[in-house]
Amino acid sequence: MDNTIIRFNNDYNHLAHESVLNALNDISSESYAGYGTDEWCGAAAALIKDLAGAPDADVWFFPGATQANFVVISAALDPVQSVISATTGHINAHEAASVENTGHKILELPETDGKISAAQIEACAAAYYDDNEAEYLTEPKLVYISFPTEKGTLYSLHELEEISSVCHKYDMYLFVDGARMGYGLGAPGNDVTLRDFARLADIFYIGGTKCGAMFGEAVVLNAAPLRKRFKAYMKQNGAVLAKGWILGLQFHALLKNGDYFAITKRADELALKIRDAFRKKGIPFSVESCTNQQFVILNDEQIRALSGSYTFEPSGRTAEGTIVRFCTSWATTEEEAARLIRDIEAL
Amino acid sequence: MDNTIIRFNNDYNHLAHESVLNALNDISSESYAGYGTDEWCGAAAALIKDLAGAPDADVWFFPGATQANFVVISAALDPVQSVISATTGHINAHEAASVENTGHKILELPETDGKISAAQIEACAAAYYDDNEAEYLTEPKLVYISFPTEKGTLYSLHELEEISSVCHKYDMYLFVDGARMGYGLGAPGNDVTLRDFARLADIFYIGGTKCGAMFGEAVVLNAAPLRKRFKAYMKQNGAVLAKGWILGLQFHALLKNGDYFAITKRADELALKIRDAFRKKGIPFSVESCTNQQFVILNDEQIRALSGSYTFEPSGRTAEGTIVRFCTSWATTEEEAARLIRDIEAL
Amino acid sequence: MDNTIIRFNNDYNHLAHESVLNALNDISSESYAGYGTDEWCGAAAALIKDLAGAPDADVWFFPGATQANFVVISAALDPVQSVISATTGHINAHEAASVENTGHKILELPETDGKISAAQIEACAAAYYDDNEAEYLTEPKLVYISFPTEKGTLYSLHELEEISSVCHKYDMYLFVDGARMGYGLGAPGNDVTLRDFARLADIFYIGGTKCGAMFGEAVVLNAAPLRKRFKAYMKQNGAVLAKGWILGLQFHALLKNGDYFAITKRADELALKIRDAFRKKGIPFSVESCTNQQFVILNDEQIRALSGSYTFEPSGRTAEGTIVRFCTSWATTEEEAARLIRDIEAL
Amino acid sequence: MDNTIIRFNNDYNHLAHESVLNALNDISSESYAGYGTDEWCGAAAALIKDLAGAPDADVWFFPGATQANFVVISAALDPVQSVISATTGHINAHEAASVENTGHKILELPETDGKISAAQIEACAAAYYDDNEAEYLTEPKLVYISFPTEKGTLYSLHELEEISSVCHKYDMYLFVDGARMGYGLGAPGNDVTLRDFARLADIFYIGGTKCGAMFGEAVVLNAAPLRKRFKAYMKQNGAVLAKGWILGLQFHALLKNGDYFAITKRADELALKIRDAFRKKGIPFSVESCTNQQFVILNDEQIRALSGSYTFEPSGRTAEGTIVRFCTSWATTEEEAARLIRDIEAL
Repeated sequence: MDNTIIRFNNDYNHLAHESVLNALNDISSESYAGYGTDEWCGAAAALIKDLAGAPDADVWFFPGATQANFVVISAALDPVQSVISATTGHINAHEAASVENTGHKILELPETDGKISAAQIEACAAAYYDDNEAEYLTEPKLVYISFPTEKGTLYSLHELEEISSVCHKYDMYLFVDGARMGYGLGAPGNDVTLRDFARLADIFYIGGTKCGAMFGEAVVLNAAPLRKRFKAYMKQNGAVLAKGWILGLQFHALLKNGDYFAITKRADELALKIRDAFRKKGIPFSVESCTNQQFVILNDEQIRALSGSYTFEPSGRTAEGTIVRFCTSWATTEEEAARLIRDIEAL
Repeated sequence: MDNTIIRFNNDYNHLAHESVLNALNDISSESYAGYGTDEWCGAAAALIKDLAGAPDADVWFFPGATQANFVVISAALDPVQSVISATTGHINAHEAASVENTGHKILELPETDGKISAAQIEACAAAYYDDNEAEYLTEPKLVYISFPTEKGTLYSLHELEEISSVCHKYDMYLFVDGARMGYGLGAPGNDVTLRDFARLADIFYIGGTKCGAMFGEAVVLNAAPLRKRFKAYMKQNGAVLAKGWILGLQFHALLKNGDYFAITKRADELALKIRDAFRKKGIPFSVESCTNQQFVILNDEQIRALSGSYTFEPSGRTAEGTIVRFCTSWATTEEEAARLIRDIEAL
Repeated sequence: MDNTIIRFNNDYNHLAHESVLNALNDISSESYAGYGTDEWCGAAAALIKDLAGAPDADVWFFPGATQANFVVISAALDPVQSVISATTGHINAHEAASVENTGHKILELPETDGKISAAQIEACAAAYYDDNEAEYLTEPKLVYISFPTEKGTLYSLHELEEISSVCHKYDMYLFVDGARMGYGLGAPGNDVTLRDFARLADIFYIGGTKCGAMFGEAVVLNAAPLRKRFKAYMKQNGAVLAKGWILGLQFHALLKNGDYFAITKRADELALKIRDAFRKKGIPFSVESCTNQQFVILNDEQIRALSGSYTFEPSGRTAEGTIVRFCTSWATTEEEAARLIRDIEAL
Repeated sequence: MDNTIIRFNNDYNHLAHESVLNALNDISSESYAGYGTDEWCGAAAALIKDLAGAPDADVWFFPGATQANFVVISAALDPVQSVISATTGHINAHEAASVENTGHKILELPETDGKISAAQIEACAAAYYDDNEAEYLTEPKLVYISFPTEKGTLYSLHELEEISSVCHKYDMYLFVDGARMGYGLGAPGNDVTLRDFARLADIFYIGGTKCGAMFGEAVVLNAAPLRKRFKAYMKQNGAVLAKGWILGLQFHALLKNGDYFAITKRADELALKIRDAFRKKGIPFSVESCTNQQFVILNDEQIRALSGSYTFEPSGRTAEGTIVRFCTSWATTEEEAARLIRDIEAL
């Protein structure tokens, strides 16, 4: 019998999808221009602009998501401007204060299932503009949201349209962290497309690291004021990969035949089967998610029972027990999911 | 015959040495713990500590060299402390003011062939300590040098010992940028070893990006005060790769059989053959280098003659013509070097 | 009849107490050494160290409180460390994100009457040390509290002792913003002394700007690690006044005969008389304060009635009306308070 | 006879000109609105705009010059932009790296008698725009010069016009540090007026601290892009004085009858008499200055002879001896200058 530990702890525990590895092996004897000025970055950018219906956007490839987040924010904001984010926003909770380190305050809004609403954002912006001593506050200039959120939930198209509208009203950028973009787009019930993001957001990105690439995030920049010297911001923060073609090549490989969307959608489906298994056992969830991250509340005995065969991640506590994240990925197999489901049924 | 353009413009124009690619392909179906807590990072760190004779050092793997430079400096310095560097130091000339962006002044010293001397460093440090209004200056706290330098030259062991001694005298860290470490260690006439760096420097790194890896730099941290929260500095600046094992694996693959040293040494040898060809033609050099970077002074006609078949990089002007860098790498073949040499002879 | 508008809007609307003005006029023909190296700064520092029973402390004079706050925090924290503060803390709410501008996150705790508790602080610190991925968070390293708070309330000696104890347990600095120190020390029911602050806090200051000086805050630095280069931090942030003796002289003038304490105590007494007048009219308070700041909830008609003769400051809204701050100061006269009380009675 | 030590060490060793002290005493019983929203700031700004012929400029009052320098630069520059300055520029040499602390590189140009030329500035700017990898450099965006310079010298109108023209050509701000503005305007041979600065510079300031005020600098802001949120930058950096009227009042007092110009001009005249005395003795100068700062080269015996009766400031060494600054100010009397001249003659 198979007794290896299967990792459901996150969606970045396998090297890369085979389309990526094949592409790398195919070009291993070629030479390229450096720093992202190569043909693969060009081809991948063209693909992305086409998929997003954004011919005028700029596309930049970052090695990692924390970099993408703080470099975009650093480029977008003046020192007296701030970011609106959910308290659970990745930039606020998991990135060692990288945004504050660049000098900017995060205006935290309480979240509901990982999301913030247009009404909350409007109230926050209005509070600044209504203050008659606004020079003692910072101007909210960028709204950061994640799709999917850190809790696996999704904004609906209607919610995004409302948020985008508030952003325009108060002259704020809308920045969508898409580190798990594929898992969001492919989820049942999702009604948002890349074209919607290109239309509604000033900046968004298509995550690679968690969606089949070895590493890398493709940032789509609609906001004209940010374009002029954006690469200098990237360089200044060490985000320009010397062999930039490795990034372009990966996105090209994942996107050209739609693998990116297929493999993340399949991961969502496996996650929902696992969700159903927990549900049938009457095990509660801390949040209702339709994407590849599922947050269940387990008691100590259940944790013990599963931790012999699987890795998974504690994510807080409630009165009922420990919140635990189970995460599928593009690399999760049907067999791995089935084995977990059997073990859930046996709890 | 072959009429493709051969790149001598830099040492990061090919994907990776075959040992790296083989290692990646070998583990492509495995899963690993994230953020550098995996076994490959452990094994590579052990190898490096062994090679450097530094059992107590910490080893951290960075995606890129600019990140390594500014994160180390940011972690080492208080806001009222500064860095001593040659004017030509990479941090001072090519990284979009990443050090100043973290709030620190660079005290630039004029260089000779890319190097600064212990006497210069001492004079700079003493000027601070001798000033009776030193609170209006910044305390020099870290000396940054590159091995090899940006001009391809090397510090001798004696020079390093003198510099290290001045650093201790004035309580300054010595930080050696080893982005091209392999090309330095393998050069004829070099008398410095990794063990010397571990003994004389507080922080140094073994470059991967330019020496056979896809990307990555291995930072060796001797300085105890920096160790406590170093990973938080890395995370804050986006330098912790989610799939950290990709970095550890590459260094392990390159170092375990000594490939790292062999392939860079061979590149030096090819560079020196090219150097000899230029020399025989009476073409002058802007600096005397024994490593993989050669800086020749070409006139416009010579540039035209070679630019049809090769890429190379302009690097300033003198009265005699344009300074041009020719760079070999671990990926340069005997045939490529031979072809260039023939074309130099035909100038 | 007197129909000038009387300012109850803040405690910094008059030039300075006569002891300060007399001292300035007395030395107007003298010359002094610059940048705080003069004899008045020395004498004032000696007085303060004596009053606080802190012979080993360093005393530094700042032009203003925002500067004092962010310079102290900047000197105390590494980039991966953060500040704990009440949401209503002055640094979090009124200083245009000066702390974040120096690169540090503020960990906001919900306040009760402007205060935070030792238990809250402990929970916040413990959350960091209990996290097994603490490198993705920032280390709480300094606790910022105000005495009196921004709502006019006071910490008791017992509360301060508990907070100080938690700070020691988690190796955090305790920093007390004493911009209104005099009004706190002189309030009825206060049981804390300057000696207690010197014993329990690592850094605190004795505010001058709001307590009788033209401007200036006297920062008392107990924390040894901050002392070494503190003046360089001050200079770097423009907080070293060229004619530093103007600061030392003012504190000397205010403290030498105890005027500082007498004039702020009298302001508290006037404030409490005004409080009683509001109370008698059944006008509610948003918070119970025993210092010179009183926060009442007025309806529009009451605001209209009083705003013809007095300035006062809106400070938020509740269902019952507008929260309004009435502030006495060392400069408020018995007559001014009496006139306001009559007008309150007539509401 | 008189045996007190007379201070020629700097121009900020006396409290303030009597016009300032009288004005302060006159309003000591008045109350004012806070943070610079009072009528004195308004009146002083109007006077300054009138004197400078700049009705559309904004005028802001800063407590000190270091603050004025780094706040202006912080407000003017994006993180990937830098400042051009002489190596001897005050921001580069005497302010503890305050500019780098806000994240900006200073591009240092070698100075001649404390000045930099339009040609040097143009070469520096052109080097950025000519670089085909300019994203690895920072964009020069602001030129900082001092009038008078740190060596007491002056830019001519023609030189300023050339510099201004280069700034416009390369879309750079011209920022003139006028900490000693009065001493420059009043010097014999000066051909520049406040109206010229308003016409040629984007930002300049009229120094108070060294020119008769207790403290304070009046920043004149022509550059429209900086105006929108300038006060927020001031607040964020602690540069908004609570009792802002103290600043406005001082400038009003000094400027309304022209005292500012008269008292600094007189100081220049005394300095030139002292200069002539040194010259007659054959004592060399390190630089030719026509303003209140005179830099002579003294041997040890001469220093000993004068240091019993006067303070003066060492300012470097040459082969011939120690460079020493003698500084007159608005507070220097005819008698003090005469006594020094007698003692020079007796050397």
